[in-house]
Amino acid sequence: MAPTGEGAKKMDEGDRVHSSDYEHDIEIDVNEEIGRYWSGLSDRNRAHSKPLLVKRTNTTSQIAIVGANLSPIESLDYEVFDNEILKNEWRSRKKVEIIQYVMLKWGFALIIGLGTGLVGFFNSFAVENIAGFKLLMTTSLMSQHRYVEAFLAYAGVNICLAAAAAALCAFIAPAAAGSGIPEVKAYLNGVDAHQILSPSTLFVKIFGSILGVSAGFVVGKEGPMVHTGACIASLLGQGGSRKYHLTCPWLRFFKNDRDRRDMITCGAAAGVAAAFRAPVGGVLFALEEAASWWRSSLLWRTFFTTAVVAIVIRVAIQFCATGKCGLFGEGGLIMYDVSSSNITYSVNDILVVLLLGAIAGILGSIYNYLVDKVVRTYSVINERGAAFKIFLVVSIALLTSCCFYFLPWITNCSPCPSGSTMSCPSLDESGEYKSFQCPPGYYNDLASLFLNTNDDAIRNLFSPRIVKEFHISSLFIYFATIYFLGIITYGIAIPSGLFIPVILAGAGYGRLFGRLVESMTNLDRGLFALLGAASFLGGTMRMTVSLCVILLELTNDLLLLPLVMLVLLVSKTVADCFNKGVYDQILKIKGLPYLEAHAEPYMKNLVTRDVVSGPLITFSGIEKVGNILHALNGTRHNGFPVIDEPPFSDAPELCGLVLRSHLLVLLKEKIFSRDRGFADKSILQTISSLDFGKPGSGKGIKLEDLDIKVEEMDMYVDLHPITNASPYTVVETMSLAKAAILFRQHGLRHMCVVPKSQGRPPVVGILTRHDFMPEHVLALYPDIKPHKWQ
Amino acid sequence: MAPTGEGAKKMDEGDRVHSSDYEHDIEIDVNEEIGRYWSGLSDRNRAHSKPLLVKRTNTTSQIAIVGANLSPIESLDYEVFDNEILKNEWRSRKKVEIIQYVMLKWGFALIIGLGTGLVGFFNSFAVENIAGFKLLMTTSLMSQHRYVEAFLAYAGVNICLAAAAAALCAFIAPAAAGSGIPEVKAYLNGVDAHQILSPSTLFVKIFGSILGVSAGFVVGKEGPMVHTGACIASLLGQGGSRKYHLTCPWLRFFKNDRDRRDMITCGAAAGVAAAFRAPVGGVLFALEEAASWWRSSLLWRTFFTTAVVAIVIRVAIQFCATGKCGLFGEGGLIMYDVSSSNITYSVNDILVVLLLGAIAGILGSIYNYLVDKVVRTYSVINERGAAFKIFLVVSIALLTSCCFYFLPWITNCSPCPSGSTMSCPSLDESGEYKSFQCPPGYYNDLASLFLNTNDDAIRNLFSPRIVKEFHISSLFIYFATIYFLGIITYGIAIPSGLFIPVILAGAGYGRLFGRLVESMTNLDRGLFALLGAASFLGGTMRMTVSLCVILLELTNDLLLLPLVMLVLLVSKTVADCFNKGVYDQILKIKGLPYLEAHAEPYMKNLVTRDVVSGPLITFSGIEKVGNILHALNGTRHNGFPVIDEPPFSDAPELCGLVLRSHLLVLLKEKIFSRDRGFADKSILQTISSLDFGKPGSGKGIKLEDLDIKVEEMDMYVDLHPITNASPYTVVETMSLAKAAILFRQHGLRHMCVVPKSQGRPPVVGILTRHDFMPEHVLALYPDIKPHKWQ
Repeated sequence: MAPTGEGAKKMDEGDRVHSSDYEHDIEIDVNEEIGRYWSGLSDRNRAHSKPLLVKRTNTTSQIAIVGANLSPIESLDYEVFDNEILKNEWRSRKKVEIIQYVMLKWGFALIIGLGTGLVGFFNSFAVENIAGFKLLMTTSLMSQHRYVEAFLAYAGVNICLAAAAAALCAFIAPAAAGSGIPEVKAYLNGVDAHQILSPSTLFVKIFGSILGVSAGFVVGKEGPMVHTGACIASLLGQGGSRKYHLTCPWLRFFKNDRDRRDMITCGAAAGVAAAFRAPVGGVLFALEEAASWWRSSLLWRTFFTTAVVAIVIRVAIQFCATGKCGLFGEGGLIMYDVSSSNITYSVNDILVVLLLGAIAGILGSIYNYLVDKVVRTYSVINERGAAFKIFLVVSIALLTSCCFYFLPWITNCSPCPSGSTMSCPSLDESGEYKSFQCPPGYYNDLASLFLNTNDDAIRNLFSPRIVKEFHISSLFIYFATIYFLGIITYGIAIPSGLFIPVILAGAGYGRLFGRLVESMTNLDRGLFALLGAASFLGGTMRMTVSLCVILLELTNDLLLLPLVMLVLLVSKTVADCFNKGVYDQILKIKGLPYLEAHAEPYMKNLVTRDVVSGPLITFSGIEKVGNILHALNGTRHNGFPVIDEPPFSDAPELCGLVLRSHLLVLLKEKIFSRDRGFADKSILQTISSLDFGKPGSGKGIKLEDLDIKVEEMDMYVDLHPITNASPYTVVETMSLAKAAILFRQHGLRHMCVVPKSQGRPPVVGILTRHDFMPEHVLALYPDIKPHKWQ
Repeated sequence: MAPTGEGAKKMDEGDRVHSSDYEHDIEIDVNEEIGRYWSGLSDRNRAHSKPLLVKRTNTTSQIAIVGANLSPIESLDYEVFDNEILKNEWRSRKKVEIIQYVMLKWGFALIIGLGTGLVGFFNSFAVENIAGFKLLMTTSLMSQHRYVEAFLAYAGVNICLAAAAAALCAFIAPAAAGSGIPEVKAYLNGVDAHQILSPSTLFVKIFGSILGVSAGFVVGKEGPMVHTGACIASLLGQGGSRKYHLTCPWLRFFKNDRDRRDMITCGAAAGVAAAFRAPVGGVLFALEEAASWWRSSLLWRTFFTTAVVAIVIRVAIQFCATGKCGLFGEGGLIMYDVSSSNITYSVNDILVVLLLGAIAGILGSIYNYLVDKVVRTYSVINERGAAFKIFLVVSIALLTSCCFYFLPWITNCSPCPSGSTMSCPSLDESGEYKSFQCPPGYYNDLASLFLNTNDDAIRNLFSPRIVKEFHISSLFIYFATIYFLGIITYGIAIPSGLFIPVILAGAGYGRLFGRLVESMTNLDRGLFALLGAASFLGGTMRMTVSLCVILLELTNDLLLLPLVMLVLLVSKTVADCFNKGVYDQILKIKGLPYLEAHAEPYMKNLVTRDVVSGPLITFSGIEKVGNILHALNGTRHNGFPVIDEPPFSDAPELCGLVLRSHLLVLLKEKIFSRDRGFADKSILQTISSLDFGKPGSGKGIKLEDLDIKVEEMDMYVDLHPITNASPYTVVETMSLAKAAILFRQHGLRHMCVVPKSQGRPPVVGILTRHDFMPEHVLALYPDIKPHKWQ
């Protein structure tokens, strides 16, 4: 072990580091080693190559934002770890093993599709039945004019369901709260938040989502479905369980982050496909929003997974068409039919639609702003303990119940339209014409929206058939209520999707807008509701192609495409002027170090050596056991450069990079020798790449598991077989912006910085994810103005 | 200039290198310098890090395949060239300029959409009118029983049109022949074939495609539309024309390969959108098939472009609905309606569909195999001159006319169905019931397919309305004829798309298959035709998601999705067992050095220093004019590493990379000094990044344009302001597989190889696209067995 004298530097996330530890590490570096290094270097910077930096300070980096419930995070390593053991396996790999591997990949894709499809169906089935029963009970009590009892029953059931969902979340898997999409997005970017894909999270996500949606919250099941799909995929990727003897030599291929990432991408796509019955939309969602990394063959596998989901759900619906699924009807999975609406349009109509999109963009960015504030406030409350979490959930449930039950009293009863194909007033749990308090022959339009499942409310709003069934005042009340309830509901401790609240608010807004401009346009009101929903989604989520396709798959009418595209583009453009997409905001609140696809503009004026922090710890190619143990004990670094030194090479040269987890395996297997020399070939027989596979989260060898005797401390271990001989390297004068893009595009965990000139150690530092975080860079150079250049 | 002594190596494509020049360069390196370098190094390779190499030979690389018409190619450079002049511009860039840049990007996307949409409409309009007139004439002659004259008229018109198309191609723009999709794909991968996106190519592509499709060839307009879209985008990206005083300071932002790549991606997507009226399919096509590089913001812009195309075409069709477009009807742009077909299916049906897909996969791979052979044969003929080209085209036109006119005589006349909404026999140019030689009340089913436009033939085959209108024998004759005509037509010197031949053959196959298995399934025959087309496309093109979406947008029925997905997956999987997709094959025949997304398995056992070739030519940071001129004269290299040496640094250190084109600017501007010292700041005022923008193809300063006096040869020039200080670097022991992926993912043209140890020059070689080509690597190491590992 050689902390290199020149003050070269090193900063790495530890094995499950808390964010506060991060800051500690940075304080070390900035004060001491670096100062000297910099004073030594600075005179070499000529005028025209000098970066825009001014001075370095002791300010600590602020990765995490106050009040957020920080969880331990771990970086993932998507790099092919190109060491001798792996190469040896590649060479000896038989053809049958490759076929096994390919078959398994596709088999897993099939299982992910089947599992996610079934869960998606079960979710809808359960929600329709629970919520349907609740609504039937309320409707029947109201039809007997027992209004107080109806409210008590309605609110009581809601509060019980809400409390159950909150309790699941608070006591079993706190990670299951919220949408889950930001966490999946972070995972695919290379950040593993604690417990985010564990079996308990999966369990709570499924049942908590059913309870939460049934409880009448303004939340959706779509985000949770994405998370559920990712959890199912992650479970498959754990490589079996040694505890339950469910291991299989085949599964060793999947004991790495790369294959898990592929499977989780499939899982996320399957989730969207199951939630919206939108297989192409699912693939595009994974591509546009979820994944940070993509390749063509993955497109194909993802597509297969969502096709399986589509078939599973189709079979389930055909099964339910025979009436065996209780209250679950056609409407259990969203599928709207607006095909009868008028879709010829003039220039005038397009202007109106542009206005609709622009206003929706503004409303969407306000939505994001308020969600941000509310989530920050809630996270302070939620951190105080489980009781506070449950109390918050119950309060919101009560408020929601009150709004939904009492607001319809404001509106006037409308006479039933003659010649409608639906019964009016309807007496079943769904339907477009809720009687509520109205006399026979009349219906309450607001109750038809509020006292319905979310899917039925959307279907009512999108409905083109009935021309005048919603008063302007009703639409306004509905829109305003859903808009604000949506904002204050996200962030409570239940699984809660954001798609449905936004679609509900957007559809209400669109239909209201359509009513207000009806003198200027011939477009159908149902179409306006659809466009409103699209524009609201564009204004909050900031996706384009995937949303467009999802909406097309929901409505099954491709002729709507140009208008939907237009409105999405306008609302996204307008909203992007104000703030970021809602998932990006949540990522930030959660303190997940997400690497953006584009580097910040000021990074163009910095070079990699400006941000590396240390001290750098390196190993010799053949190193003393004691030195390794000391290094592992004294730091939480995960990667160590290996340097070959004389007499094993003419001059010190970079041999590669070893990982902490691989060192621990070598130490546990005690492959030591008394002499300082190369290990013989037999080592490749003793250990196989199976031993170096990445274990499931929380498992794996720990430092405490080692039992090294005192006399072994002076023995040597040959690190060459486990050294990644092809680490990604950058020269110290590489622009930070380019290095950041390189780092992200290859899904790296470590990147070695090499010197630009002779006479220096062959590696002068290591860059990790943390070093590219704007918070870190700006803390080092507080005089940089992070203004936008490009 | 310092050819570094250690024998470090360099191989680069020249500025418009001919493929034969390549080979010459390699011969130099292998014989001399490298041998010494390798003998010096080899003893350092320890057992466990030794690559699988055996010996190096003098075999020259075979990039190009014999017989292909090789055109000069140039590598593109998608790297951000991070030099001082550019940085200076970034710093001084005003906010209004950034807004200009963003507005321009979107404005260009709008223009690309408008242009491609209009061309797409014009194309359909012209084809429908020319081909319609020809068919009307033939039909009218036949109804007078003047059969010989009918044939002469039919064949005569076809031959004239074909000869005109061939003449355009042969004399004006040979690059316009063929589909164009492989060339666009290569451009987006970083290979610029000569003249491939020039204005003359655009002109010939548009009119040649109209003439060719009208001439009744089994070719489509879809591939040419993609190429057309790319050409339109490329014209916009040329940064105006100095010749015609159409320059504008704003356009300087686009004088680089990166921005042009983005625009051409948009253009390719717009082409598909215009050809198929499939905006989402267009985006996905660009993503899945065309582009090698993608980012989220590009997705959005591409989407906008295709939305514009969709709106343009919609407006044009509404205009034509009033009957102002001659024979152009609704059918001018493909849009099939199969929505009335039966789409409930059982397990039995799925098994039948799986069989359909599997057989289509085999037929598709045979198709690709035969196309490959035919194109290689034709390219030998085409190379002999324009007359041979035209002769070949005319022969195929005659053969096609004979097949189309005489084959329908084989079949029996069918009685007109009663109760059909169409007139039978139809007398207009299209229609489902061609009278041909049949008596009144009867029609010829084969003539309804052959003597029709391609679009109408597809519509007939997809048609679900008529139950028994095609004899099994007719379908077999049709399928076999189209299958083989499609194969022998591709490769002749006219713009020719592959989509329509494959869809026609596939639809015939599917309908035939449906007839053969009709006892086993309830699926509609029109649906079988659609599934047949899908499976054939999957078997030849090997795309999945984009084809699926294109087919859905053509048929406007999302309920078909699961079956279409299934059949595509099966046929692609089966066909992938035999050979590569048809576009990949054509890329190979054309000798375009396309970098695959995945490195070849044997590259895992090689390291970068195993393939770099030399000699390496480097410059000092402050270099003599004479040395630079000598280097530029003596080599065709495009990139030169710049090394700072004492007294300007303590030790030789890597300063960066300069490009040939930038050096030429500096020499032309004569920014020299008598002293060996840094240039003063005023240089940044003298030259701006505008001067260094990449000119349109074929323009730019040439070495002959320079006028350097003898006394200037001993003056110095400071290269620092134009040096890219952040070149991508890899250590010499980096795995070649990883380096290849790095090279492709970042769209590089040059990659510096740095040493792993001290005491060596700071850069030991340069890697270019050529060094990663399997042909080059296998020529260096002929003992490697390129077997498949993964």
